[in-house]
Amino acid sequence: MYYIGIDLGGTHMAAGVVNEEGAILTKAETPTLVGRPYQDIVRDMAACIRTAIGQAGISEADVHSIGIGIPGIADQKTGRVIFCPNLSWRDIPLRDEVQKHIDKPVFIDNDATVAGWAEYQAGVSRGCNTCVFLTLGTGVGAGIVINGRIWSGAHGAATELGHLTIEVDGEMCNCGKRGCTERYCSATAIIRMAKEACAQQPDNSIMRKCGGDMNKINAKIVIDAAKEGDDVAKQVFNRYSKYLTIAINNIISFLDPDMIVLGGGVSHAGAFLLDAIKAQLGDYLVFPTLELPRIALAQLGNNAGIIGAALLGRQQ
Amino acid sequence: MYYIGIDLGGTHMAAGVVNEEGAILTKAETPTLVGRPYQDIVRDMAACIRTAIGQAGISEADVHSIGIGIPGIADQKTGRVIFCPNLSWRDIPLRDEVQKHIDKPVFIDNDATVAGWAEYQAGVSRGCNTCVFLTLGTGVGAGIVINGRIWSGAHGAATELGHLTIEVDGEMCNCGKRGCTERYCSATAIIRMAKEACAQQPDNSIMRKCGGDMNKINAKIVIDAAKEGDDVAKQVFNRYSKYLTIAINNIISFLDPDMIVLGGGVSHAGAFLLDAIKAQLGDYLVFPTLELPRIALAQLGNNAGIIGAALLGRQQ
Repeated sequence: MYYIGIDLGGTHMAAGVVNEEGAILTKAETPTLVGRPYQDIVRDMAACIRTAIGQAGISEADVHSIGIGIPGIADQKTGRVIFCPNLSWRDIPLRDEVQKHIDKPVFIDNDATVAGWAEYQAGVSRGCNTCVFLTLGTGVGAGIVINGRIWSGAHGAATELGHLTIEVDGEMCNCGKRGCTERYCSATAIIRMAKEACAQQPDNSIMRKCGGDMNKINAKIVIDAAKEGDDVAKQVFNRYSKYLTIAINNIISFLDPDMIVLGGGVSHAGAFLLDAIKAQLGDYLVFPTLELPRIALAQLGNNAGIIGAALLGRQQ
Repeated sequence: MYYIGIDLGGTHMAAGVVNEEGAILTKAETPTLVGRPYQDIVRDMAACIRTAIGQAGISEADVHSIGIGIPGIADQKTGRVIFCPNLSWRDIPLRDEVQKHIDKPVFIDNDATVAGWAEYQAGVSRGCNTCVFLTLGTGVGAGIVINGRIWSGAHGAATELGHLTIEVDGEMCNCGKRGCTERYCSATAIIRMAKEACAQQPDNSIMRKCGGDMNKINAKIVIDAAKEGDDVAKQVFNRYSKYLTIAINNIISFLDPDMIVLGGGVSHAGAFLLDAIKAQLGDYLVFPTLELPRIALAQLGNNAGIIGAALLGRQQ
């Protein structure tokens, strides 16, 4: 059997045909064009699915199920999207609408949950019992697998690790609260910290890399400058990695999973990031003598969205 | 069958005979007398067990198992206490030592975990699937039940919710880190906040209740004064309940359990505390329209230690 995975984003959507091993055979993309009726978006989604199926040389009869990763939350029982801010969706009957086009079981879950599920099913955390996936991008998303099952909480509000408070009355977050983890651990946070540092000490390699225009600072520029040994960039990176270490310790002190997987743009810092976390983590652990969760980099990159969505059907 | 539960504390230990319904039939206590060899402490523990069994009019053959709640952590597989600071125990073969006296299955777990298990088995959270118990006392302990099973994490380091960071570089904690939740949400935290407030505005009802001696301030005095409407006490209580609300939102955003149960000394504030949390929680939720975990007061009080320890045997 084959599984269809949809990665539904605010700008693009992609459909892929995924095999039992979790490999993508074919992929079709189209712009999401946010703002139009959801029925039109779903119609294009169905067209992408058919294109990907056709390219794979399989038929609809070979398809086990369709999974959709959304930048929001869904009700697993009803198949409705509860809330999806990037698409301005509230209470949308996504499963029913998809099934008007293609009559297969449809599963919907949050995009970070889906990416974590992909790493668990076909990536770096395969074989773990319990793992937490953190995506360090514009925000901080998370996907949690407990005892081999996706964890969404009793009411669908779980795994919002980007919105755990780590600084009471701290930086303002898009969610309306202050001091959320994602204000300190996202790529956006590195950029903010770098701008603060560059405003104070402008003679540094970050500023040279972005031609003196602070608006061009991104996480990669800061991390590259830190890797090259620039003092200001190292200060910024150390500040960022301290917060990330604290966020990781919060995961350990709460759940103590087998593995913590880091994905998203910042994770491309690679061993440089892992080494910084490992060097500081000992200062925060409650039980420093106990064995630690393995902390690893995500393996599937951007494909995790399609693979994880597709393999939602395998959980059922 | 009957279950033996031991509540092993730094000053006293108590053994109880517990029936299938989770009720304590008989209880025997003795001082722990920390500092002597663990073999002597276990010998007295066995004597307490025999006393409680005798008083209950049952025989050892009627006993299913022995459970022990400790103020520390244990290895479930080996039955060894890994670390128990109040008793100065490190790597103690507690199960083996108990079985030298009474040859029954022995289960050992953290005291907060055990109290949460008691509430789940025989108290307020009975019938829940997933629940988090928080004990608000000298420190903040927690017990987590996920899908009807005690959660200890992959390496035994989980459920240390008192040591999640909620204020980076905040108040110094006994664990050696700064900004731990228990520095803001324990009874100790209320006392600290009250002392700070009384130093600035000494003309208040807290000071009158403790005869002008700040060293006599305790959580009950502050809460009573706040209930009576004293402005300074209300400020302190509002500050405390804000932090507790943030800690509770961190639990919701991470795990979203069916129920969150509050125990320990501060929970005796009752509906006054629950109302304060519920009034503020909406400001912190990521998804305010979703159904919330029920937030409730613990029912079993000090008996939770014996009941929960006893019923550890029921999980196996």
